[in-house]
Amino acid sequence: MQILENRTFDELKLGDTTQLIRTVTEKDVLLFAYLSGDVNPIHVDEEYAKTTQFGQRIAHGMFTALLLSTAVATQLPGPGTIYRGQVMKFQKPVFIGDTITADLEVIEMKKRVNLVKIECVMTNQRGEEIFSGVSTAIAPTEKIRIEASAIPEVTFQ
Amino acid sequence: MQILENRTFDELKLGDTTQLIRTVTEKDVLLFAYLSGDVNPIHVDEEYAKTTQFGQRIAHGMFTALLLSTAVATQLPGPGTIYRGQVMKFQKPVFIGDTITADLEVIEMKKRVNLVKIECVMTNQRGEEIFSGVSTAIAPTEKIRIEASAIPEVTFQ
Repeated sequence: MQILENRTFDELKLGDTTQLIRTVTEKDVLLFAYLSGDVNPIHVDEEYAKTTQFGQRIAHGMFTALLLSTAVATQLPGPGTIYRGQVMKFQKPVFIGDTITADLEVIEMKKRVNLVKIECVMTNQRGEEIFSGVSTAIAPTEKIRIEASAIPEVTFQ
Repeated sequence: MQILENRTFDELKLGDTTQLIRTVTEKDVLLFAYLSGDVNPIHVDEEYAKTTQFGQRIAHGMFTALLLSTAVATQLPGPGTIYRGQVMKFQKPVFIGDTITADLEVIEMKKRVNLVKIECVMTNQRGEEIFSGVSTAIAPTEKIRIEASAIPEVTFQ
């Protein structure tokens, strides 16, 4: 059982951090293709991908944004956050098997409207920066501590 | 069989547009939760969601970014595009059953580096603007016309 607990605006301070680490699997890429409708063979067809400049399948760039969104929504500030905007750069391709580390830090706070800005940098297992961005969100004002929902396992037919 | 055909930098011009329409299903939201790891009950637990300010389950804000990413990667400019960055605002919540229309338009082109900026506005079936943003991408220089990959059907166990 996973508990989601937020950090309210009043609990947050400049420099607060969180981290999310995830290894990208073939299933992740296929599910992203299925869910998004972006079925470009460069993401799902190994033979085709070999003929491209990348030489292998690459994850969809926007997959990194999902990880960031999850870190903001479940960790910093967490439940009750209203996600307002995002600026981001996709700096390098992400390959299947890459382990992505997302480091988030609160870089700006506006008390009047409970607004926070959170910087995120993602690196891969080779230490290369693959993503950078800044999230804008309204931080929660009430403490929330809830049980995460259980999602059934997903399979391909 | 779905064919993906790009528009090369030389084929593109300012004001070119494309559109993507999608109705958000419960399965979409559950798959996004599964894939992203954002299992906040506000997205997946109808009873919990009723107790929140929204009164019902909401889609993850970043789901809209998936649709935009797909429109850029498969339609405008399409295959061969290198997605470089994204600025976006999540303006209103998206509910299960909402039909989202994403309208994209080329608003800037830099010949020297084949860079294009694409503005996107998304509206729901009530005519409310729910998303706005600008994508930065390197447009392909070579014509690509490829068969989209077939993705097996996804089911929950």
